[in-house]
Amino acid sequence: MDPIRFETHPDRYRHFKLEVDGPMARLFIKIDEDGGLHDGYELKLNSYDLGVDIELADAILRLRFEHPQVRALSVESGLDRIYCAGANIFMLGTSTHAFKVNFCKYTNETRLGLEDASAASGIRSISAINGVSSGGGYELAMACDEILLSDDGTSAVSFPETPLLGVLPGTGGLTRLVDKRKVRRDLADHFSTLAEGVKGRRALQGGFVDQIAPASKFADAVTARLTELAAESEAAFAHRKGPGVLLDALGAEYSADGAEYRHVSLALDHDSRVAHLTVRGPETLEPTDTAAILARGADFWALRAFRELDDALLQLRFNHPEIGLVLVRVTGDPDAILAVDETLDRLRGDWFVDEVVAYMKRTLKRMDLTAKSFFAIIDEGTAFVGSLFELALAADRSYMLDDPDHPTVLQLSAMNAGVFPMSNGLSRLETRFLGDPAKVEEALAHDGPLDAAEALDAGLVTFAPDDIDWEDEVRIAIEERASLSPDALTGMEANLRFAGPETMETKIFGRLTAWQNWIFQRPNAVGERGALTCYGRPERPRFDFRRT
Amino acid sequence: MDPIRFETHPDRYRHFKLEVDGPMARLFIKIDEDGGLHDGYELKLNSYDLGVDIELADAILRLRFEHPQVRALSVESGLDRIYCAGANIFMLGTSTHAFKVNFCKYTNETRLGLEDASAASGIRSISAINGVSSGGGYELAMACDEILLSDDGTSAVSFPETPLLGVLPGTGGLTRLVDKRKVRRDLADHFSTLAEGVKGRRALQGGFVDQIAPASKFADAVTARLTELAAESEAAFAHRKGPGVLLDALGAEYSADGAEYRHVSLALDHDSRVAHLTVRGPETLEPTDTAAILARGADFWALRAFRELDDALLQLRFNHPEIGLVLVRVTGDPDAILAVDETLDRLRGDWFVDEVVAYMKRTLKRMDLTAKSFFAIIDEGTAFVGSLFELALAADRSYMLDDPDHPTVLQLSAMNAGVFPMSNGLSRLETRFLGDPAKVEEALAHDGPLDAAEALDAGLVTFAPDDIDWEDEVRIAIEERASLSPDALTGMEANLRFAGPETMETKIFGRLTAWQNWIFQRPNAVGERGALTCYGRPERPRFDFRRT
Repeated sequence: MDPIRFETHPDRYRHFKLEVDGPMARLFIKIDEDGGLHDGYELKLNSYDLGVDIELADAILRLRFEHPQVRALSVESGLDRIYCAGANIFMLGTSTHAFKVNFCKYTNETRLGLEDASAASGIRSISAINGVSSGGGYELAMACDEILLSDDGTSAVSFPETPLLGVLPGTGGLTRLVDKRKVRRDLADHFSTLAEGVKGRRALQGGFVDQIAPASKFADAVTARLTELAAESEAAFAHRKGPGVLLDALGAEYSADGAEYRHVSLALDHDSRVAHLTVRGPETLEPTDTAAILARGADFWALRAFRELDDALLQLRFNHPEIGLVLVRVTGDPDAILAVDETLDRLRGDWFVDEVVAYMKRTLKRMDLTAKSFFAIIDEGTAFVGSLFELALAADRSYMLDDPDHPTVLQLSAMNAGVFPMSNGLSRLETRFLGDPAKVEEALAHDGPLDAAEALDAGLVTFAPDDIDWEDEVRIAIEERASLSPDALTGMEANLRFAGPETMETKIFGRLTAWQNWIFQRPNAVGERGALTCYGRPERPRFDFRRT
Repeated sequence: MDPIRFETHPDRYRHFKLEVDGPMARLFIKIDEDGGLHDGYELKLNSYDLGVDIELADAILRLRFEHPQVRALSVESGLDRIYCAGANIFMLGTSTHAFKVNFCKYTNETRLGLEDASAASGIRSISAINGVSSGGGYELAMACDEILLSDDGTSAVSFPETPLLGVLPGTGGLTRLVDKRKVRRDLADHFSTLAEGVKGRRALQGGFVDQIAPASKFADAVTARLTELAAESEAAFAHRKGPGVLLDALGAEYSADGAEYRHVSLALDHDSRVAHLTVRGPETLEPTDTAAILARGADFWALRAFRELDDALLQLRFNHPEIGLVLVRVTGDPDAILAVDETLDRLRGDWFVDEVVAYMKRTLKRMDLTAKSFFAIIDEGTAFVGSLFELALAADRSYMLDDPDHPTVLQLSAMNAGVFPMSNGLSRLETRFLGDPAKVEEALAHDGPLDAAEALDAGLVTFAPDDIDWEDEVRIAIEERASLSPDALTGMEANLRFAGPETMETKIFGRLTAWQNWIFQRPNAVGERGALTCYGRPERPRFDFRRT
């Protein structure tokens, strides 16, 4: 299987058409049946695979950076009588378990990205459903702020996963139904077993959609609501104005042994199943005022470095399943990184700076949600400072060398104080010190760098071996980690990383995804006569009806 | 395999010794190696199987009812140098996936029961660890309010699941570590990969235990802390005084077709995989003052009926895996049920009444957490009123017959207003109306019974077919439900039943359990060379290291 690449551009979209007109944008889903990432399935009825979702994520991202004046977005179908049929079943049927799980995680992140675009960038979204919207199609609609359904006698929303496929609407579907839309649980139960779904007034009354419109007035209703949403959003987001910032290609050099970016390196050690992920601080003088930052655009270090980091994480997830442990390092001039942090903090409220910070936030969440172990290696020449210290906080453990002859730099900045919340709504420092909240303030109040003993004492690193112990201790920890059951580690990390409050987001990844993963490997779904296997075939599924 | 029975009595305990002395109780774990529920494994090193946990649950329950003066409980080992080694690995290795999942759920409920005994009945608990406490042994300790560890150089707490078995400490372990004890996530990560665990000062500093004591002073420290805990609890629970209420045997008549109790019937239809679960209201005049209720004791209808219901739910889970759908009915004199509700509500604050209400709460939670579909069938002669209306609210759907010639009774009482919180901390009405909170007050304010149209309008039932449609509509719904993938239904229900806030409790069942279930069926755990399979054998596990 060819490696999967995550960069694209509207010029190359095969499945979407994005129209931007002043404060309003319209995204049309028109999936190319023959445009699947792999052979062996056709993307009929606007069903999608990962390649489609990569375009969707790209479109949302470019709206935020390249079209800052956009206040409202409609997600519409470019086909007749079908909105979106969700994830392609034959694609799922021919995918490995690991790919299915990673595919669902990525699509979940894309849908959360749509919600984040509304909350953080004021791009209010409406799903305008003219046709059938089933499974992942309805999940995508629910990720929009509002759903408008054509009341034409055939347009419907539905979750056929359980009745037809023996799996769950696992891309946030069940969670958004009862937690975002707050549909009554018994109505949600009935709906989720009804292959044909609900239409018109019944969909409206149950809370499955927000508005219905007769077919003859549907187009006008979309435009009218889009105009209203744009006007509603204007008050809080009037400062978001063009010119936008064009996102250029990262130009990464990929190889079997990793990837090389401008500010990020990913180097794989296949034998030990360990990756070395290094993020480098800025090497040029970074701009410090809004005009200069905007002029620097996509070359602004903070944006570029985190775009590269994001891509590297996706490479690890999809193209390097055998890698179990990622050793994270930050290098470069600590003062230069801290200077960027100072700029980002001082200029909050500038649309581009805010957008960059929101991007960094999402990338760090991507790391939290990556099913690999991360150790932060704070050894000679590293500079875990400010926003890049979040990488150490996101890691499962950190090792800091305690040796004055081989200096390391660890320092916090204002960017550790809450601008990068985790999925649980807390900062990484707050999550870390749930049992001792005073330590959050202490850490933030500390002026200047901390040496290893101070960092250990402050609870900011896990271990601080001296130069005599360092090599053995780190080596043994790495070897041990790489020897453990990859499944147990995935489950362990998914539980330990998210202490504290749960949110719709953590529920989706923690509860819904975990159940879906379970179901995805049960014979009732993927066995010879499992429902996923039998879909589209003459054989009916045959279940082992014993309840677990 | 013989059916599993859940009733026991201290006279028959094989694994525990319970000593009660005034306000203090001591529970000694001394597991009979040959006392396993099944052949094929020995319960060495105080490792447990379901039979052990049934005794533990019984002991906690009897403390609450039979020894109301108890304010503090120690959980200690009756063996030398070993506290508890957790769930028996060979038992797990020889169990079906469904049994493992149900076993873990039951032990989770037992541990939550220990926490509930502290919160609701003032039985503060301390785990006094003198020896090695590993895996489920440490999970049990964490369910106590406090942990005292002997600082003797060998006593330790540990989670060897991930390093040795390739699974998770799934009985609340990972969740309690970071959410109850608020251990820092990186320390929790390290600890959870360390087969030998931590001892003494290190355990104390990391927050893994609350107190350590030298071996020579350990016994005194236990007694001292137990005495302090009892004194602390006394203020709020002084009203809990003897005589206690002895819990007699339920005397159920079990058969292959279900179970018959005094107030509950469980009738199985094997062909359709449907069970009929009927709870009957009181048939005698129930006492209305505290003295008379205490005199009635275990025969008090509310206690007896819910003990029977609890047992019936456990029968369904463990002994009838093929049953997918449970049709729930409530029959009897609605006024008699409402009269009991009035009594329970009026006498809150009386220790025995409170204990009964807490028992009802736990039983209803057991229903919420049972992996079967529940439909409430509100047809002729049924009386879904007050506390028993919670059964309809706990059900996935409800069908109410709308036919004046065949009357049904549906009515709320003060007992629906929050005394039976779900695991998410909300009442079932609050969870139901998350999207429309005003409906909670409306429903509670309604005086008298609601007919089907009123109940439907109030959102209290899902469907209200008239007599012409009733039979077909209900029959089709039942047949459809019974035809769906049992796994998809389990996952769907686990997501739809718990909208709203998450708690440590919902995290345990929703997140930790779901991941453990996933891991429990992965080849890396249960395959030919999986870690669970290889445990205790000369072969080392062989993993497929690809991360999912």
